[in-house]
Amino acid sequence: MTTVGILGGGQLARMMILAGAPLGLRFRVYDPAADACAGQLAPLVTGAFDDLQALRAFAASVDVITFDFENVPAASVAALTALKPVFPNAQALAVAQDRLSEKTLFQSLGIPLPAFADIPSLQVLEQKVAQFGLPCIVKTRRLGYDGKGQFRIREQADVAAAWQALGEQAGSVGLILEGFVHFDCELSVVAARNAAGDFVAWPVTRNWHVDGVLSASLAPCGMPQAVQDQAVAHARAVAEHLDYVGVFALELFHCDGQLLANEMAPRVHNSGHWTGDGAQTSQFANHLRAGLGLPLGDASVLGVACMLNWLGTMPEAEPVLAQAAGFWHDYGKQPRAGRKVGHANFRADTPAALCQALAPVGQALGRDDQVRPLLDALSAR
Amino acid sequence: MTTVGILGGGQLARMMILAGAPLGLRFRVYDPAADACAGQLAPLVTGAFDDLQALRAFAASVDVITFDFENVPAASVAALTALKPVFPNAQALAVAQDRLSEKTLFQSLGIPLPAFADIPSLQVLEQKVAQFGLPCIVKTRRLGYDGKGQFRIREQADVAAAWQALGEQAGSVGLILEGFVHFDCELSVVAARNAAGDFVAWPVTRNWHVDGVLSASLAPCGMPQAVQDQAVAHARAVAEHLDYVGVFALELFHCDGQLLANEMAPRVHNSGHWTGDGAQTSQFANHLRAGLGLPLGDASVLGVACMLNWLGTMPEAEPVLAQAAGFWHDYGKQPRAGRKVGHANFRADTPAALCQALAPVGQALGRDDQVRPLLDALSAR
Ligand SMILES: Nc1ncnc2c1ncn2[C@@H]1O[C@H](COP(=O)(O)OP(=O)(O)OP(=O)(O)O)[C@@H](O)[C@H]1O
Ligand SMILES: Nc1ncnc2c1ncn2[C@@H]1O[C@H](COP(=O)(O)OP(=O)(O)OP(=O)(O)O)[C@@H](O)[C@H]1O
Ligand SMILES: [Mg+2]
Ligand SMILES: [Mg+2]
Repeated sequence: MTTVGILGGGQLARMMILAGAPLGLRFRVYDPAADACAGQLAPLVTGAFDDLQALRAFAASVDVITFDFENVPAASVAALTALKPVFPNAQALAVAQDRLSEKTLFQSLGIPLPAFADIPSLQVLEQKVAQFGLPCIVKTRRLGYDGKGQFRIREQADVAAAWQALGEQAGSVGLILEGFVHFDCELSVVAARNAAGDFVAWPVTRNWHVDGVLSASLAPCGMPQAVQDQAVAHARAVAEHLDYVGVFALELFHCDGQLLANEMAPRVHNSGHWTGDGAQTSQFANHLRAGLGLPLGDASVLGVACMLNWLGTMPEAEPVLAQAAGFWHDYGKQPRAGRKVGHANFRADTPAALCQALAPVGQALGRDDQVRPLLDALSAR
Repeated sequence: MTTVGILGGGQLARMMILAGAPLGLRFRVYDPAADACAGQLAPLVTGAFDDLQALRAFAASVDVITFDFENVPAASVAALTALKPVFPNAQALAVAQDRLSEKTLFQSLGIPLPAFADIPSLQVLEQKVAQFGLPCIVKTRRLGYDGKGQFRIREQADVAAAWQALGEQAGSVGLILEGFVHFDCELSVVAARNAAGDFVAWPVTRNWHVDGVLSASLAPCGMPQAVQDQAVAHARAVAEHLDYVGVFALELFHCDGQLLANEMAPRVHNSGHWTGDGAQTSQFANHLRAGLGLPLGDASVLGVACMLNWLGTMPEAEPVLAQAAGFWHDYGKQPRAGRKVGHANFRADTPAALCQALAPVGQALGRDDQVRPLLDALSAR
């Protein structure tokens, strides 16, 4: 009997537990919040992510450790590595936590990416903005998520405003400047790798963000096969370099026929949620299978699948459940503005059948805007 | 936020919890055993099924009640009905708990079934055996499961032995005699009905039993459509008569072109486990959707699916997980002779692909005998 400890008890941990229970796994969850939603399905230990004493006690109560939250301090994870196997490894986590090291890694592997520069001061910011040209984006190097900690510089006057907003973080979490990409579309590769080096990638997913937060995903993405192969090759190169074990996502921009790497997430990823109902094996199951040395499951999509994210409050379930193609995912969280509280997956044999399921859902929920990009992409097939 | 209370905390409750969590449901489980395996995923209250005080306290802590165990005393369920909604209803449970009332119901609905008779005494047993002819089967009316509480009368001398074995239960749980059916195959209808009268049935499943316990299931069953329609019509008639809410199974024998009803199970059923990976909606999800007034999910099979039951101890997972078509279900139980400890599901687009996944599993696990009936049935397609 193997007990998996998960650092972070949000929806990702919750869905790992749901996927791992059929494998006979038990779980324990560690989270600062007493109402962390994964605690509904497994014993929850509350504690801070930098409380090494509490973390060590937690490690003693489990057989293997993973995380659902990429901002667990890499130092904490490194300390636990001495006690129990941890996947993915602390070094991979450390790289992914810092946009500068992540982009430097992409660059060293020959993966194209937007122009970027470390920004220690207003002076360097001004200089790099002049060099990159407008628009561009300042981001915190660490601790950003869901588009938080970002400032878009559209015109020269925004430079001072950006420094005003984020400058004081230059000395703590660090800042980075990125050239703005006028992308045709956003893609992600969700993939799993195990310690033996086996690697599987789900079909490349197309993603739509609203205000920096994922709104909808579609798989397969519909891009030419050569583009998808290139995206997967980039993901594989990153994983091999990091000796990565588990599931991760590589986010990419597609722009004028070229792929540019945005960032990687060292964990199961929102853009892979469709795999829970739309693939032969889900990202949650394969993350655990990878970490536990079980054979990786088949990552094919069952026809065509998509996801709609629910932020803030859950919409009505009925219109989704009324569709044969629809699957409901309520994370059991309290509503809160902007919070990821759930999602719906849809799976059908053909793009036309998927459209037929989505359109009435968009209407019934008053979410035509959220559904429209999916319908447009699907009807172009 | 709805909390579902489940009476009985075995694998069926466990799989209901796994299917219900994505619907945003919370669960509490009531079971006499402190190590009931559903307790790994939800708070577990221990208590006897006839401890009305403990059951009432449990009812007070949940919003709606169902069960995973058909031998919860119907009187306990009836008492709880006064406190909280219970599905399926106590009357349906009571009928299904008694082979005599169940068979009498089938008869009254015009559903063909084997000869049967209530057996209060050895004298009646002798008389009915003479009337039905050999072979035949004595079964306890109540509390039998997995072929327990049964005695097969093959020759005249077995009559005394049967009475010796089961006679003293004639006055407690009651006895019934059934004519033995030389069936071509065993089938089951797993179906869901809600309070509005909506009814969905999964494709009729073919089942193989070994020593009275389910060993393997296959869906669709491969019988002519008219036979399947008849089977579903029988199931629907039973459900409508009982005003049944939730999932149930009707077990049938197919014999010389005719369907004979064996028994019904007032709950999710082992012969429906394949739906967890092989159908658009699982029996566990639809049981909850039915009870909570949510739309019933589509019950189509995704290609062709089958299940292998694991009794006693879990085999090695690897050969199953190595197949793209394979899904593993370990109930997290301690091994014990004859105990249902897990199952494997397989799903593929074609019968040939399913065979290709099954054959190496049978070999690797030394379970060719368990797999063979599936391979034979599939290769006949
Ligand atoms: N350089 C860029 N050019 C154009 N758009 C960008 C750029 N960087 C970010 N964006 C937009 O903002 C979104 C969020 O940015 P990013 O992925 O860096 O942030 P994040 O906080 O890590 O978000 P998440 O956690 O959702 O991935 C991107 O998916 C993209 O839509
Ligand atoms: N009358 C009969 N004729 C032939 N075989 C029978 C008969 N009754 C039972 N069997 C065989 O024994 C198996 C178990 O019988 P039955 O379904 O009555 O028992 P049970 O204890 O309720 O089992 P379970 O809980 O597994 O359904 C049947 O599936 C069938 O294989
Ligand atoms: Mg991102
Ligand atoms: Mg039976």
